[in-house]
Amino acid sequence: MQFREYGGDREVEALIALMAKLPGLGPRSARRAVIKMIEKRKIILEPLAQILGSVSEKITECVECGNFSTEEVCCICSDDERQSSIMCIVQDVADLWAMERSNVFKGIYHVLGNYSSIYSGINPEELKVDKIRNRLEKEHVEEVILALDATINGQTTAHYLIEKLQDTGAKFSSLAHGVPVGGELDYLDDGTIRAAFTARKNL
Amino acid sequence: MQFREYGGDREVEALIALMAKLPGLGPRSARRAVIKMIEKRKIILEPLAQILGSVSEKITECVECGNFSTEEVCCICSDDERQSSIMCIVQDVADLWAMERSNVFKGIYHVLGNYSSIYSGINPEELKVDKIRNRLEKEHVEEVILALDATINGQTTAHYLIEKLQDTGAKFSSLAHGVPVGGELDYLDDGTIRAAFTARKNL
Repeated sequence: MQFREYGGDREVEALIALMAKLPGLGPRSARRAVIKMIEKRKIILEPLAQILGSVSEKITECVECGNFSTEEVCCICSDDERQSSIMCIVQDVADLWAMERSNVFKGIYHVLGNYSSIYSGINPEELKVDKIRNRLEKEHVEEVILALDATINGQTTAHYLIEKLQDTGAKFSSLAHGVPVGGELDYLDDGTIRAAFTARKNL
Repeated sequence: MQFREYGGDREVEALIALMAKLPGLGPRSARRAVIKMIEKRKIILEPLAQILGSVSEKITECVECGNFSTEEVCCICSDDERQSSIMCIVQDVADLWAMERSNVFKGIYHVLGNYSSIYSGINPEELKVDKIRNRLEKEHVEEVILALDATINGQTTAHYLIEKLQDTGAKFSSLAHGVPVGGELDYLDDGTIRAAFTARKNL
């Protein structure tokens, strides 16, 4: 997009170009978003500029679990009411947030950041197993839930972690496979149906 | 969304809540956008915080035409190469930008900001006709293109403006109605087809 073609000024255009890099926004919706921001200057633009400046300055990864946080230790790791004897290992922060939204887990987390994968060139060493081991020992973790993706990379990583951490004495578990709540059989892949059939329950 | 349910920290959550107010983004996509921002901290989050701070501080309406600008007079009004003898009146800045993108108009603009409408309670007085009149005279405008929406409010406003500004001696025109380029007849409303039929051209 050239400057003259676009009709805004240089800084507004730079803002639109950056917004358009966000997932779910293209140049068109970024433009609309920026117009709305400017129109609602007091209630969107100014607070957004302020909070974004603050987050940009302070955001970091929690030194304990890897969650995004504006403090050194995130709100989950610093919450005394959470059970530190049960740890959920997720791939990334988005997965951690998804687990939190489901409101079913009250333990602590560990964000892997990567999967071991020969395709993406990630070595198992990069999973930093020692860091997990230290934390399992420090927090006396009794159960580790491997909430990893049901993909080859996720499952390979799960097996690798179990192998490396078995001697800690923690019990390992994974999320159950089955039909998603609200899911229609007709739209499901064979693997899911097979898993749900195998794990069928008596009523 | 409660704090504990969400898993991020207070500032990250405030950022998501603000982003979710933008058109085209809901809570889910705002969350994804914020995660992407933080992951790409150096190339998105930090530049975005910087530019947004700057825009938030400086953004204003061009004193001449009403376009958004970080300077007192926008880049269009301050461009000597544009013809000031032809003025395009649009309803809002989004329309001005749309006209600029089409790259067909090289004159000056006036952003109305509102339509005269008994429904929305806008009085014709709020259109600030005197401001337009002053500018028509100052710039010796010969033609005024009323690029207003083809709605009742847009058309009522157009007629009102013509009535009030006729004595300036400027010629008034409007955008042509017809089949949109790439449009399929089957999907068009009756009004558009009727307008396109009436304005049909010999080949």
